[in-house]
Amino acid sequence: MGPGPISAYPSVLRAMSAPLVGQYDPFMTATMAETQDLYRRVWATENDATLLIDGTSRAGIEAALVSLIRPGDRVLVPVFGRFGHLLAEIAERALAEVHTIEVPWGQVFPVSAIREAVARVRPHVLALVQGDTSTTMNQPLEEIGEICRAHGVLFYTDATASLGGNDFEMDAWGVDAATAGLQKCLGGPSGSAPITLSERAVEVIRSRARVEAGIREESDPDAADFVRSNYFDLGMILDYWGPRRLNHHTEATSMLYAARECARVLLNEGRAAVIARHRLHGEAMLAGVGGLGLGVFGDLAHKMHNVVAVEIPDGVPGEAVRSTLLADFGIEIGTSFGPLHGRVWRIGTMGYNARTDAVLQTLAALESVLRRFGASVPAGGGVAAAEDVYAATDAPGGD
Amino acid sequence: MGPGPISAYPSVLRAMSAPLVGQYDPFMTATMAETQDLYRRVWATENDATLLIDGTSRAGIEAALVSLIRPGDRVLVPVFGRFGHLLAEIAERALAEVHTIEVPWGQVFPVSAIREAVARVRPHVLALVQGDTSTTMNQPLEEIGEICRAHGVLFYTDATASLGGNDFEMDAWGVDAATAGLQKCLGGPSGSAPITLSERAVEVIRSRARVEAGIREESDPDAADFVRSNYFDLGMILDYWGPRRLNHHTEATSMLYAARECARVLLNEGRAAVIARHRLHGEAMLAGVGGLGLGVFGDLAHKMHNVVAVEIPDGVPGEAVRSTLLADFGIEIGTSFGPLHGRVWRIGTMGYNARTDAVLQTLAALESVLRRFGASVPAGGGVAAAEDVYAATDAPGGD
Repeated sequence: MGPGPISAYPSVLRAMSAPLVGQYDPFMTATMAETQDLYRRVWATENDATLLIDGTSRAGIEAALVSLIRPGDRVLVPVFGRFGHLLAEIAERALAEVHTIEVPWGQVFPVSAIREAVARVRPHVLALVQGDTSTTMNQPLEEIGEICRAHGVLFYTDATASLGGNDFEMDAWGVDAATAGLQKCLGGPSGSAPITLSERAVEVIRSRARVEAGIREESDPDAADFVRSNYFDLGMILDYWGPRRLNHHTEATSMLYAARECARVLLNEGRAAVIARHRLHGEAMLAGVGGLGLGVFGDLAHKMHNVVAVEIPDGVPGEAVRSTLLADFGIEIGTSFGPLHGRVWRIGTMGYNARTDAVLQTLAALESVLRRFGASVPAGGGVAAAEDVYAATDAPGGD
Repeated sequence: MGPGPISAYPSVLRAMSAPLVGQYDPFMTATMAETQDLYRRVWATENDATLLIDGTSRAGIEAALVSLIRPGDRVLVPVFGRFGHLLAEIAERALAEVHTIEVPWGQVFPVSAIREAVARVRPHVLALVQGDTSTTMNQPLEEIGEICRAHGVLFYTDATASLGGNDFEMDAWGVDAATAGLQKCLGGPSGSAPITLSERAVEVIRSRARVEAGIREESDPDAADFVRSNYFDLGMILDYWGPRRLNHHTEATSMLYAARECARVLLNEGRAAVIARHRLHGEAMLAGVGGLGLGVFGDLAHKMHNVVAVEIPDGVPGEAVRSTLLADFGIEIGTSFGPLHGRVWRIGTMGYNARTDAVLQTLAALESVLRRFGASVPAGGGVAAAEDVYAATDAPGGD
């Protein structure tokens, strides 16, 4: 019940035991094409360039940024948590001219702040996290695409923590590039990064200089426009996933199976239904920790559905509570980073863990452990508050 | 029965269905530590810096090269097949001054040629493929480490195609950095890249400038010494796998389980026994294709045990034979690249596919399909020749 990685859907775990096939076996290429089609529906996009990067969610971020950013490009990164800093760092390493704006942890940016910064910086790329698990905040993106189009800016967003558990509309919001991972609301293991690219983004990628196998004899390396990575060169990866099927890396077959099954689970239940389930169980968990008398960090109007930052009560040893929950109840909750380190636990309700039993058991266990460490908590207060949320909704409480 | 990816060991497929745990769960960190220890034995090394890169074998190559190579460094790449070109290309993208030497496909380098080139180029890094599936050749490495030490050169080798099926002695041969993948002789899926680094290599990596999250304000980016990638910055990845457990990416848990099981299978059977098994079944396959009257490409004295390049007879449609083998017998054999394209099939006997039944069934099926396409082949000649190899050895033919 941490902020991710989380327990995977059982069918996703099973999917990875399927036999491997050769990378140009017709079954393999058909599976790749099927997976692309499933993820178009997950992302709500018609982007042809919808595929997987073979690596963790961070690999997807880096593939997007190093392929879209030329050395010297201006990149604007609004930072509202740890993963905004990561985007800025990756853009730095790609030799971008990085500009940041910041809000305190626990807040998101008003649209006006992003509009002003885009107009002032006139970046080539706006790189903006959607959901940042470090603060639990969910940055509204609805109007950002329009701002970016008006200024000729490519709009990239990191939806790792949010996709599948919160609204996301790739095409309707005018996003040019987005990446995610399986280990949050998609309910799979870390190790495969869904990515989707608009035609504008693909045009930029296709305009980069190609590197052929062999030796660059004499050109000026600093001026050269090639992507500094082979593994993350989206131009080559698109040719591998596209109809040309040009050999690049050997696709990570078992992770492909996992990614396909994550999308199938989501689409079989229905995108809207899965998001509603995350909202429901997130609200139940939020009410439950309140019922235990615990405070919650951040602007609740902009909290992601799938994670809550719970303030550690004074005098309660936060790490001892976590390790007791794990040892005696088999339940993991998360620690936290940066300014929140030692101040909050992060409790997730995402993917397979967005379930009534998972929420109620976690609240009951947390109550028991808090009492063991001398905290004064209302008996049954967490479970009762969560049950009130379930009783008040028409939606089924389970999955 | 292609040149990889191959059918995985059944226990490796099962291992990926194990439940996920949080990335700082004691079980998770213990599993990471156990996997490091297993791979020290696989690589025959005492290197503390022995771990996995979360990506395919190509990700391992790129992590090693971008972390060891500073912009402007001289890198020597002896090229004897497709993957030598890949090493040169990745070094190019890392802004190295790349020098290559070449031999025709189907040959390896005499030690004298590498000694001469090292003395002439005086590279910072020698990057040399061990086994190149594109040509089936296995470059001898025994004396290369000594040459590199004498000239202060870091010695990197890509053992993706060879590790586990051919001799490899990290420490005894004086290799400074080596990477592999699971999808060849280790008998697992693509998507995790074992890597090991000598103390000399770690010193170079630790001497690179660190990039902290946040903004580089004014330094000269071209002169700066930081690794141009976050995902492949081995300094950070070592801190994640090491005792500090500093958060980097979220480890790809299911692929970690797969990698651990690949090493367990190998070590339970025994390193020497697994290599002997690859030698035996490779010899049987080689004899078998000879028994069918087919020619074999390349210098057989330096062929990898685990793959053979079989010349396509005149008048036989190579791709139709491959697709018929797949459709009617469920057996995949490989096509080929570059100068060998259309000239040879590549048949693998590696990992789980290095088995008597796999060899004999492939030879019988190939005979049947060749005859269907009008080739004149000795009846039973392939199977009989392979059986002679099995009969002549004391080792059991199966696994």
